[in-house]
Amino acid sequence: MKPGSDPVYLVGAGPGAPDLLTLRAVRVLGKADIVFHDALVHPDTLALAPHAEKVDVGKRCGRYSTAQRFINKRLLDAAKRYRVVVRLKGGDPMLFGRAHEEIAFLKQEGVSVEVIPGVTAALAASAELGVSLTRRGISRSVVFATTRAAESEPPSRWAEAVAAADTAVLYMASKDAELVKDTLIRRGVSPEKPVAVAERVSLNSNVQFGALAELPRLTARCGDGPAVLLIGEVFARTRSQQERLSTAEADMLLQNLPALVAGSVSGPRL
Amino acid sequence: MKPGSDPVYLVGAGPGAPDLLTLRAVRVLGKADIVFHDALVHPDTLALAPHAEKVDVGKRCGRYSTAQRFINKRLLDAAKRYRVVVRLKGGDPMLFGRAHEEIAFLKQEGVSVEVIPGVTAALAASAELGVSLTRRGISRSVVFATTRAAESEPPSRWAEAVAAADTAVLYMASKDAELVKDTLIRRGVSPEKPVAVAERVSLNSNVQFGALAELPRLTARCGDGPAVLLIGEVFARTRSQQERLSTAEADMLLQNLPALVAGSVSGPRL
Repeated sequence: MKPGSDPVYLVGAGPGAPDLLTLRAVRVLGKADIVFHDALVHPDTLALAPHAEKVDVGKRCGRYSTAQRFINKRLLDAAKRYRVVVRLKGGDPMLFGRAHEEIAFLKQEGVSVEVIPGVTAALAASAELGVSLTRRGISRSVVFATTRAAESEPPSRWAEAVAAADTAVLYMASKDAELVKDTLIRRGVSPEKPVAVAERVSLNSNVQFGALAELPRLTARCGDGPAVLLIGEVFARTRSQQERLSTAEADMLLQNLPALVAGSVSGPRL
Repeated sequence: MKPGSDPVYLVGAGPGAPDLLTLRAVRVLGKADIVFHDALVHPDTLALAPHAEKVDVGKRCGRYSTAQRFINKRLLDAAKRYRVVVRLKGGDPMLFGRAHEEIAFLKQEGVSVEVIPGVTAALAASAELGVSLTRRGISRSVVFATTRAAESEPPSRWAEAVAAADTAVLYMASKDAELVKDTLIRRGVSPEKPVAVAERVSLNSNVQFGALAELPRLTARCGDGPAVLLIGEVFARTRSQQERLSTAEADMLLQNLPALVAGSVSGPRL
């Protein structure tokens, strides 16, 4: 690490919309010499680092991803060469972002690290849905979990944690909707438990409400944008919300009518 | 609601430091006509709303707090009189903030609401401690819970959720440290489970590390600032961190030496 350098900054880019970045993150991006960023960071967010070299070390579920060891190595090399190095991660850097591996490696190499927190997708989804994750009398706990685990990892206790908490938000789990539904129902969670799926939260988002039993059908209606699965009584729809959504579903049905008639798209159950 | 008005904004003020506010929150504060804020919002954050009347509807554990019904009524009255009404809540508005009650009341009265998410204390604490709340191989779930419940509420399942998740963060629980320790140990959680207490996160913060069995002693070392209790293997200290903290503890001991000798302050166990 060059003398007089800043620490390496691990910065939360927030859920997607550039204006959900913190002021502290904006300030650090503004002075960055190099930014290593996730694949899903918005171009307008990257534009906040006008002088920086941008390096996409895109980690994205099911797509090309840079090996963690290689990212660690590049961060260390950059810390030796540049004054201000930023590692920009989607959402909050300390939730499901492998921040620990980067921090531990850099510290071991004598490079100090500063973490700038961000708005995580669960909270952005909650804001967008207008549904509080906690509610007096209904929810006094909310768990954030993932079904994803490395092959070398011990079996995750995600289902135990989700079943025990009043509200749950699952990250990187939309491809596991069938597993989530089956596992939770087998654990005694009601198939009628209200759920929501929120894709591309804060950016042209797509939200689906329903019951746990319908979860695979709801995720199938989403595209391949990043999504969170939300589970809990707080997501129960009021009558007026149900009516509003039925209209939205009817619109979708009408739009897709030619394809539906041709049998290439399966419509929502009305 | 006056025609042409903005919705009422429920805005997350973040954990304390004004520069952990989002750009979107700053923009809304800048045009606010009136801001109803929690007691703990930083003066520099309020200064971002230069034209607004500021109303402290301070809800703070164990102190004077404005009744929720009265806050709801004032928000509604303001929505009828002003163009831009902001309800500014510490942290993220949708976590332990009674946002549901305000949203439901306003919507029922025909007033629309927009929620702007914020950085919650758990994530700011994680950033400040440099400890990721999730870690591959150790933690694939993190629960945010509170021991607090209204008298009319059903008994909270907080302990069940905390015991089932790999990492846990308890809000508004520092006065319940004894209860948390006893309840979790009775549930089979190890007394050696690593914990941390983080007070006034992001602002002149005070962080204590230890084991679950020591939790009441750790919270007793904090002042009466807002604090989160963090529980989980991820908070285990490495040898170098332990050494560093021992030095910090030794410094504290030296600073307090006169009081310690006089018996008015209890020193840390070295």
